[in-house]
Amino acid sequence: MNQYTKTVEKWNVFEIRTQGRTDGNPFADYEVWATFTGSNEQKTVRGFYDGDGEYVVRFMPSYEGTYTFEISGSYADKKLAGEFLVTAPTGNNHGPVHVENTYHLKYADGSSYYSLGTTCYAWVHQTNEMQEQTLQTLDENAFNKIRFCMFPKHYDYNYEDPITFPYVGTPCDNSRLNRSTMFEYMEDKSSNHWDFKVFNPEHFKRFDKRIEQLMERNIQADLILFHPYDRWGFDGMGAEYDDFYVSYVVARYGAYRNIWWSLANEYDYVKTKTIEDWDRIGELIHKEDPYKRMCSVHNGPAFYDFSREWITHCSCQGTDRYKATELTAEIRQKYGKPVVWDEILYEGNIDLGWGNIGPEEMTRRFWEATMRGGYAGHGETYLFAADETMDYAKLWWSHGGVLYGESPKRIAFLYDILKDIPGGQGLRFLPQYWDAVAATTEDESKEFYLFYFTYLRPLYRDMYFDDTTEYEVDVIDTWNMEIVPRGTFKGKFRILVGGKPYMAIRVRKRRINK
Amino acid sequence: MNQYTKTVEKWNVFEIRTQGRTDGNPFADYEVWATFTGSNEQKTVRGFYDGDGEYVVRFMPSYEGTYTFEISGSYADKKLAGEFLVTAPTGNNHGPVHVENTYHLKYADGSSYYSLGTTCYAWVHQTNEMQEQTLQTLDENAFNKIRFCMFPKHYDYNYEDPITFPYVGTPCDNSRLNRSTMFEYMEDKSSNHWDFKVFNPEHFKRFDKRIEQLMERNIQADLILFHPYDRWGFDGMGAEYDDFYVSYVVARYGAYRNIWWSLANEYDYVKTKTIEDWDRIGELIHKEDPYKRMCSVHNGPAFYDFSREWITHCSCQGTDRYKATELTAEIRQKYGKPVVWDEILYEGNIDLGWGNIGPEEMTRRFWEATMRGGYAGHGETYLFAADETMDYAKLWWSHGGVLYGESPKRIAFLYDILKDIPGGQGLRFLPQYWDAVAATTEDESKEFYLFYFTYLRPLYRDMYFDDTTEYEVDVIDTWNMEIVPRGTFKGKFRILVGGKPYMAIRVRKRRINK
Repeated sequence: MNQYTKTVEKWNVFEIRTQGRTDGNPFADYEVWATFTGSNEQKTVRGFYDGDGEYVVRFMPSYEGTYTFEISGSYADKKLAGEFLVTAPTGNNHGPVHVENTYHLKYADGSSYYSLGTTCYAWVHQTNEMQEQTLQTLDENAFNKIRFCMFPKHYDYNYEDPITFPYVGTPCDNSRLNRSTMFEYMEDKSSNHWDFKVFNPEHFKRFDKRIEQLMERNIQADLILFHPYDRWGFDGMGAEYDDFYVSYVVARYGAYRNIWWSLANEYDYVKTKTIEDWDRIGELIHKEDPYKRMCSVHNGPAFYDFSREWITHCSCQGTDRYKATELTAEIRQKYGKPVVWDEILYEGNIDLGWGNIGPEEMTRRFWEATMRGGYAGHGETYLFAADETMDYAKLWWSHGGVLYGESPKRIAFLYDILKDIPGGQGLRFLPQYWDAVAATTEDESKEFYLFYFTYLRPLYRDMYFDDTTEYEVDVIDTWNMEIVPRGTFKGKFRILVGGKPYMAIRVRKRRINK
Repeated sequence: MNQYTKTVEKWNVFEIRTQGRTDGNPFADYEVWATFTGSNEQKTVRGFYDGDGEYVVRFMPSYEGTYTFEISGSYADKKLAGEFLVTAPTGNNHGPVHVENTYHLKYADGSSYYSLGTTCYAWVHQTNEMQEQTLQTLDENAFNKIRFCMFPKHYDYNYEDPITFPYVGTPCDNSRLNRSTMFEYMEDKSSNHWDFKVFNPEHFKRFDKRIEQLMERNIQADLILFHPYDRWGFDGMGAEYDDFYVSYVVARYGAYRNIWWSLANEYDYVKTKTIEDWDRIGELIHKEDPYKRMCSVHNGPAFYDFSREWITHCSCQGTDRYKATELTAEIRQKYGKPVVWDEILYEGNIDLGWGNIGPEEMTRRFWEATMRGGYAGHGETYLFAADETMDYAKLWWSHGGVLYGESPKRIAFLYDILKDIPGGQGLRFLPQYWDAVAATTEDESKEFYLFYFTYLRPLYRDMYFDDTTEYEVDVIDTWNMEIVPRGTFKGKFRILVGGKPYMAIRVRKRRINK
């Protein structure tokens, strides 16, 4: 065999990197493919050109044991082949996340994935120092999914050019740019000059690295492919270039077990694309992605039609200021898929209504989603008095960096409660309790109940269970992050809750061997 | 003429009290009517029997000057007649409240009535000492409408018999009564014994007095005629006795300028009546009430059809836990009538979800209603640790007494802001601001704007007005009850709001002679 014989962990990336043709436009003129064969699976996957004459194929094996590969395609005359050994996963490696039991998510190794997202749209476009700071902040928090864009962002607080562009070319001059001229730049993009068939490998290599660093941290990389906040023309390249870009991204990142495809941030604000365009892109991803990664479309004013076959889950932004995650159970039922709230307003204090809720409300919205059998996503937009007139303030929501808010640790506290659900199950909403948001496990084994009182503040709560089962009851203060055991009860009993908002009661069947 | 010659203020009650037949059942067997004639109006009104051989006719004159009256009916052989002088109103007397400009309310003298309600369902059924305490608490607060029931209440915390019953007879034995047997009492009412054609004057005289005391305080008496929380059978007397009762009540209280008719608390929980019953009762009131007082039907799960001709305003209870007064503008538009939220959950901490919101949420709900051109109503249900196991705790929502909450003074603060609207106008919602609840005056004169940020917390707000008008801008902290003038601005300007919840900005056209 040859120099590519090596070992790789199951669910890690096996990468083949080889030289090929450099004449013409290697991104467009040549193809590279590889077929991977193990005793339990065979996959043929597209590779991509990475500049400097290098062609790359990446593959994620799903089984242990010996694999062989054969490369094909027009990229070179001489084709490689080889074999490698897939070893058992270690450490953080639980495999990719997939839909389990209709409404929930699990890792491939069977462990639960309770999605707790955050959003840093443009973090990979910031300075490397700031990107490192973002990773450090993620290390200090419980978030296990992050939404971010491949293309740079043009919006309030986001007027600087990214550190690299995805294409070779020259951007428009941004020296006149400020909040009041922002929309002019979005209307006339003619002074940008890009070749949409020539990618800039430096840009994509940085995304390789960041996605891999997220993978090591068990953080899902919810990669946003398109978005409307653009002054460079990346939102309106047209179908041919869109597809060319999508194929490249799927070939490049599909093997990362933590990748999720988000076709868009706020698809319905992208004026240059129709539903047919989004459907075509979604179908293309579905065809090109050999792993069928998590895939959805995030909305502005109206949900995408999540019933599409290529959509794995409902990626939702609330469409009503007063009811968002409160609608989780209805959305679940409508689409029969997991509900992942990717935008529920951000904790912060900026002047825009989507970015100035308090930590109490952010935490409450997470609980509302969770109790209704869905998942929520965080974001933060704190401006400080010194930033008030600054167009370039650094806000976690877009830039990453540092978190100042009070909700992240409450979200981590919620995570601790989720991790303690029997059997690693997801929750199911119990609609019969109008004045408590009530949930039990999906299997309805009557072993676990949660009652969440949201902004209501009962001093005590009368509970009605059957007379034959003993339950351990805890009172949970979701804001002050306290769990107070109240003892063992059966039948009808009264629990002192305290007359404070954001309280919950946890009722668990008594474990005999405790 | 005769001994009834006297003077009365316009909009006060002119009462004729005279002796008549006592044989048979004077409540049912005889009628008393009187025709009142002034130079601007003539009204023939029904009187009522008040026990002890006394027949009473009450009349509210709407004009100043000399009136004559003539009594008729089967109550006596010898009929009275007389004259009296109607003088100008004094002090608190602004006349009755009526609908003005489709969505708002005014007193007959043209002054504005911004409705700020509260609820004490059974306050007139408590001890006299407690009733006096309720009046004193009302004196210390800004509420100008109170909802209460003619019939006693049977519900949690309300198991004691009232101090008087509306009918002569004997109530069921309540010695076995507690929270868990409550529903038994509601199902079998056979051990009550009443004569539904013989009223108990002592009961009604107390209501005379309390309604008059409310009138003196300029508090509208929103009198609830029926309700479902009953163990005595008053909720299921049948059409004949219902109409007999309604006619008596209208004859007795219609002349009080502060009376409002509320056909029911939660009509849709009264299982013994149909929509046809409610419509018949509403039409009867409309026919019997010579003054066409404010009249509506309060709901449980679903609004009544407020389009009925005899309904003057939408008396609403929220039907969604997360959106109630936020829907005011839509309800206004649907029915073309004022929206008065009579139940928006109560400030408190009891175990039932309708009675344990915090003062912040109560205040927020008042502001949401107000900003959308409607009006809201308060209630309070605070239980203290010492009351926890008590079935008879005294809660303002039902018993009156003392207020402990933090919302009433914020409601009074809101009232001060309303009283300062130019021309005493009502507000109209401006839907174009998604991230501020915005309002202007109904006349859209561009002289007055309010922007309310509800739970959102902008650090600052950029405002866009025209360049030619100077505006005085204040920042209002609706929770801390502070109004901070920010100066005079025009065109585009930035206002520091502070990054706190429950803030508002008031923008008023600069007054030249200030």
